[in-house]
Amino acid sequence: MNSNSPIGVFDSGVGGLTVAREIMRQLPHESIIYFGDTARVPYGNKSADTIITYSKQIAHFLMKQDVKAIVIACNTASALALEALQQEITIPIIGVVEPGAKAALKATRNNNIGVIGTEGTINSDIYTKFLKAQNPAINVHKKACPLFVPLVEEGMLKDPVTDEMIRRYTKDLIDLNIDSLVLGCTHYPLLRNAIHNILGDSITLVNPAYETAISLGETLKEHNLLTTNAEANHVFYVSDGADKFKEFAGTILPCNVVEINDIHNIETYN
Amino acid sequence: MNSNSPIGVFDSGVGGLTVAREIMRQLPHESIIYFGDTARVPYGNKSADTIITYSKQIAHFLMKQDVKAIVIACNTASALALEALQQEITIPIIGVVEPGAKAALKATRNNNIGVIGTEGTINSDIYTKFLKAQNPAINVHKKACPLFVPLVEEGMLKDPVTDEMIRRYTKDLIDLNIDSLVLGCTHYPLLRNAIHNILGDSITLVNPAYETAISLGETLKEHNLLTTNAEANHVFYVSDGADKFKEFAGTILPCNVVEINDIHNIETYN
Repeated sequence: MNSNSPIGVFDSGVGGLTVAREIMRQLPHESIIYFGDTARVPYGNKSADTIITYSKQIAHFLMKQDVKAIVIACNTASALALEALQQEITIPIIGVVEPGAKAALKATRNNNIGVIGTEGTINSDIYTKFLKAQNPAINVHKKACPLFVPLVEEGMLKDPVTDEMIRRYTKDLIDLNIDSLVLGCTHYPLLRNAIHNILGDSITLVNPAYETAISLGETLKEHNLLTTNAEANHVFYVSDGADKFKEFAGTILPCNVVEINDIHNIETYN
Repeated sequence: MNSNSPIGVFDSGVGGLTVAREIMRQLPHESIIYFGDTARVPYGNKSADTIITYSKQIAHFLMKQDVKAIVIACNTASALALEALQQEITIPIIGVVEPGAKAALKATRNNNIGVIGTEGTINSDIYTKFLKAQNPAINVHKKACPLFVPLVEEGMLKDPVTDEMIRRYTKDLIDLNIDSLVLGCTHYPLLRNAIHNILGDSITLVNPAYETAISLGETLKEHNLLTTNAEANHVFYVSDGADKFKEFAGTILPCNVVEINDIHNIETYN
């Protein structure tokens, strides 16, 4: 394995770009190969079997590009496919769930942690399992928020309709006295300000993207895989709609998204 | 071809069940084989190439089940893939766009027709092309409504948030003096009451599902393919999540959804 190889990052679509953004900020010399599965997005309401099949195909595609590590920049795929991938793949592979959960454990003072995400992530109970395993005294209160992704993709980041849905989705969690809330879907950090305005300062918002980039840096260091390259070179692949992806990526990433490639046969990478 | 064979009906997911429902009502002796591509839903924001590939796979799957005709119960796939399928397949195949557009032409008195649908359907301009070809004097005013499908899938059929989004999405169309509005996505008939409450009696709502079932009946008669069976027998296939599909189908269809099968290799039907 070459420490100057790129890092593979994948997501069901554009959401994982919030994770790529954190990696670019915290590890500015590392190159990224990003894969967004835009033909089969969203993952949030699909079964575990399907998510594992798709994740394996993408991991094999990334391995063919000689990546030195893989980041599953998608909560649903992290929840449902990380273990299956770890059994198959020998390079370091990390998801967003564990770093996010660890940050929530640090943040809570009253042991009441809230978790919001897609139906797939919430029904998998992955955050609850992980948090309880670390500290059985933790109470985890969770809520699926299926409208948040389409609201973000409509650009309604600051909008009374979005605010109303935030109020509805978080009402029970607030009543249950949570003091920290995991934004358990990679789209949700884009709603961070709106959620903060409604929940106030007393509830700490945990962004797993930020924690994942920290965890990636530690993992690379541990395996002696930090790059010595002076400059990063990022390449993006999508399974559909490169133009639309480029537009959205341009609004999220701190770099120019120069090269986007369409991959129309991702299901053949077995 | 056997007139007692079933009719193949397909959609990206559950939306096409509103079309299946109309076929069951209008042609109660006809059997249906329904395919919902729930693993790859939604189609609305995917490219034409991808939609054509997926539609061909599903049509080939349905052909293997010996269907006598195919209904594309999805506006996006009708808009983007009907022509490609007609070139490959010899049995009658109809989409929802042409019947819907014809009904709008009958309904309008002032020649201002509105069309709402997914991004894919609206950007394809298929309704505009068809309507203008029939009558160049028609003015077509269109609007993509990306939040309607997730709102329906959240069950928010009667809700102030949904009402607010209906008001926003239709405002420009009302200002442009439309007198008929095509519900150009198979989920939208489930919002019919909510849309009617906001738009009032002066705008005729056109449901392509209803018109498609009429058109199917005419096509079958023309080809001498109406069944002589006494009883219909419906079978449902999905590419993911049979249980979730069954639950939703139960709320839409007038029959018991007894048999649902998971098909996990739809991409192999080429």
